[in-house]
Amino acid sequence: MYKKGRRAERFLVEKLWDLEYAAIRVPGSGRSYKRPHPDIVAGNGKKYLAFQVKSTSKERKYFNEKEIADLKEFCSVFGSLPVIAVKFSRSLRLFHPEDLTPTENGYKVDSSQGQTLEEFLHDNTASNRG
Amino acid sequence: MYKKGRRAERFLVEKLWDLEYAAIRVPGSGRSYKRPHPDIVAGNGKKYLAFQVKSTSKERKYFNEKEIADLKEFCSVFGSLPVIAVKFSRSLRLFHPEDLTPTENGYKVDSSQGQTLEEFLHDNTASNRG
Repeated sequence: MYKKGRRAERFLVEKLWDLEYAAIRVPGSGRSYKRPHPDIVAGNGKKYLAFQVKSTSKERKYFNEKEIADLKEFCSVFGSLPVIAVKFSRSLRLFHPEDLTPTENGYKVDSSQGQTLEEFLHDNTASNRG
Repeated sequence: MYKKGRRAERFLVEKLWDLEYAAIRVPGSGRSYKRPHPDIVAGNGKKYLAFQVKSTSKERKYFNEKEIADLKEFCSVFGSLPVIAVKFSRSLRLFHPEDLTPTENGYKVDSSQGQTLEEFLHDNTASNRG
């Protein structure tokens, strides 16, 4: 699970560089950090993005409230758009926090929802909504 | 040496948060990355900074050309100001790439040069010069 998440992060970082964003992984999620931080930060001089990344072999993925709250908190200080990225078996799907489906104690997303990275970047050229 | 560098990075990250910048460390400098990347990235919604960080018990520190070129390359894509941070025994001093003194195959800085973090941030509120 840990390795798979890392692989998804590396895959996304490479894709971002190919799309002319400078992207960096922030390893050590959750550990040894007092401050909120995302899994990936990327920028292209106009737009800045911070990603929470997950990987799954299922068709659905869950997030707890704190994960999303931390991402939004980081973005509000840094000045970046919060992005949730899920690597499903067949595709990488991207979501805005407001696109997540609320559950009893968090959120879920489905592999049939969200956008591709290219669609997501294209739809958000104007501003940092975070 | 490695531990000391890491301690300097953590110190700087904490100071940046105190000054209302969201800051993240990017561990694994030089290894396992095909792309250029800095040691720290920080932002406050207006200004974005990328740091190369070094630590020394001496009064002088050296950089090779590639270290500075990589930092500038990252910044030109990401959209951030390149910053060189050196933790000397008694003080943390910050430098723009153009403030470094050229040597035969790189650059050097002296503990009597540069600015404090507060001075540096205050002097660069206007724009991302990177």
